[in-house]
Amino acid sequence: MLNNKMTELLKVKYPIIQAPMAGGITTSTLVAEVSNSGGLGMIGAGYLTPVQTREQIKEIKQLTSHPFGINLFVPKEFMVTEKEVHSANQFLNPIRQQLNLQEKDSFEIPRFNDVFETFMEQIKIVMEEKVPVCSFTFGIPSKEVIAELKQSNIILIGTATTVREAVENEKAGIDIVVVQGSEAGGHRGSFIDEYQQSLVGLMSLIPQVVDTVNIPVVAAGGIMDGRGLMASICLGAKGVQMGTAFLTCVESGAHKVHKEAILNANEDQTDLTRSFSGKWARGIKNKFIIEMQDKENLLPDYPVQNTLTQDIRKASSTQNNQDFMSLWSGQSPRLAKSQTVKSLIKNIIEEAKNINSYI
Amino acid sequence: MLNNKMTELLKVKYPIIQAPMAGGITTSTLVAEVSNSGGLGMIGAGYLTPVQTREQIKEIKQLTSHPFGINLFVPKEFMVTEKEVHSANQFLNPIRQQLNLQEKDSFEIPRFNDVFETFMEQIKIVMEEKVPVCSFTFGIPSKEVIAELKQSNIILIGTATTVREAVENEKAGIDIVVVQGSEAGGHRGSFIDEYQQSLVGLMSLIPQVVDTVNIPVVAAGGIMDGRGLMASICLGAKGVQMGTAFLTCVESGAHKVHKEAILNANEDQTDLTRSFSGKWARGIKNKFIIEMQDKENLLPDYPVQNTLTQDIRKASSTQNNQDFMSLWSGQSPRLAKSQTVKSLIKNIIEEAKNINSYI
Repeated sequence: MLNNKMTELLKVKYPIIQAPMAGGITTSTLVAEVSNSGGLGMIGAGYLTPVQTREQIKEIKQLTSHPFGINLFVPKEFMVTEKEVHSANQFLNPIRQQLNLQEKDSFEIPRFNDVFETFMEQIKIVMEEKVPVCSFTFGIPSKEVIAELKQSNIILIGTATTVREAVENEKAGIDIVVVQGSEAGGHRGSFIDEYQQSLVGLMSLIPQVVDTVNIPVVAAGGIMDGRGLMASICLGAKGVQMGTAFLTCVESGAHKVHKEAILNANEDQTDLTRSFSGKWARGIKNKFIIEMQDKENLLPDYPVQNTLTQDIRKASSTQNNQDFMSLWSGQSPRLAKSQTVKSLIKNIIEEAKNINSYI
Repeated sequence: MLNNKMTELLKVKYPIIQAPMAGGITTSTLVAEVSNSGGLGMIGAGYLTPVQTREQIKEIKQLTSHPFGINLFVPKEFMVTEKEVHSANQFLNPIRQQLNLQEKDSFEIPRFNDVFETFMEQIKIVMEEKVPVCSFTFGIPSKEVIAELKQSNIILIGTATTVREAVENEKAGIDIVVVQGSEAGGHRGSFIDEYQQSLVGLMSLIPQVVDTVNIPVVAAGGIMDGRGLMASICLGAKGVQMGTAFLTCVESGAHKVHKEAILNANEDQTDLTRSFSGKWARGIKNKFIIEMQDKENLLPDYPVQNTLTQDIRKASSTQNNQDFMSLWSGQSPRLAKSQTVKSLIKNIIEEAKNINSYI
């Protein structure tokens, strides 16, 4: 029941992928522990420099002999005007005041060419270091990149939030597709469909994707335990990708304020916002989300807004102040626990087997 | 696996409830066929007069000897001003023009006392006619009403969209709670929590409710087949309530334009709107939803807005024009089929047993 085409492709014991959460959460210990416990540990490399990327890959190789993976953000052209930056700063400056930060009016805006170059360097490193699995968010890489990675025998995982996006992944030659339900914490992986259209719950999304594509489908969003794993399998998925459940593990690098916020939250306390990064993402509703709510549509796109809020998120985090941190979480925070990765995975598998024996 | 406390309480063979869709969809044939096929047929009596309510109950008794149920809308005090009605009419009049309807400026606004009186008469009829099961949407009836219904040995089902709402149902003495995920079509059943907070996907909602209440939990939202039934059971639900799947059945009274719209829709083509009734509901995104999108917050509450759009919905439907009809649908329209109730239920059970044998 737990062994299938997905576990074969990934060469893992259990059909459990640790979601590649970017921003320091996926420490080498977390990634290695997941792989050592029979799942697939994943580096969230979206915000890493090429140097950091290579370092972490090397570090993980020291900690595990099992397969692990890495996730990259596929860069997309973006436009930004001086005016947009100025207007976003006008909203952000009162928040900077509250955090005793210097007000700002201009910013060094990331250039697409630089972002793209970093991505291509990361791809090169993934091949040189022979990372067994590479996954993508926010899009599908070019034909050439996919062909090169496949020649290096790297298993490719794509992300989709709708049937159409899953079909595009399959067409491009991606091996496995993660379908992200509306329950999911962190960034929406949508890259064709607008975010509102793409807010489909997993109970609906999994079977409709499974009926349309032939590659293995992995479910993501709100899955925290053996119940979610078994439900996903019943719906036709081959496995699960879990974020929030691993984020509160002792090995995760998430800020303790972030972990505590999840451990104390209810199912109805998350919300979607694009105020932190310019891309829609789900997190625990805090002061920042509430204050920015009516300005959502006036803010610049990713990665510009992400750069603009960097000082705010950093200061809030340094001051142990949850008000202005991005407290990404899926819709199942009541099921989150503070435990080791080993114990989390053991519990999932035991619960799954238990369900399988009584249903 | 398919027999449990819920099927025992309801005295049904299979843990499948046909959602009580109001507005002429739940014909007596539909309700009776569901009960005759081993599920629980339900009358959507939210918009029925007391006379119509009694007539349909009597009609169904002629068609089945199996248990069936009825759903009532719990009335809530509402406020409305002349100005709100005037402003809503200003938005609606251009649509009336498109349908060759007379423009309107005033309306006979429903009075709470009348709505409440109708509800109490319906409760009386349910007891007199000894309807085996009574379910509620939009709230929980008073202690007195619950006590009377229970004395008449009527099994009570409540609706919840969050853990808190499920707990309130249990506290009030309700026997079974239907948890409505964000995937669900038609009206959101939220009665404590605001609609946005309450948009929790079933993968998250079911286990978090199951961990908190002791009464049987029934899952609703996007469930269309044996996969959804088995997934819900894995997550801890005792059964499912299905709307869209029954709506496209040949026995349903839904308009053929409505059925066709669902049969041709994709998973990302539904949206939430309060423009039809004043309460948030999910339907296939049509011209009406799009045109009213930026006026959502300016419209009067249920049931006022519902009364205001009545002529529009009726004319659109008479003209076989899907543009201004309320095309309620959950997020799984790709899984909808035109088939008989008997065949739908047979397929669900066969698929569920099949899944159970291979997982």
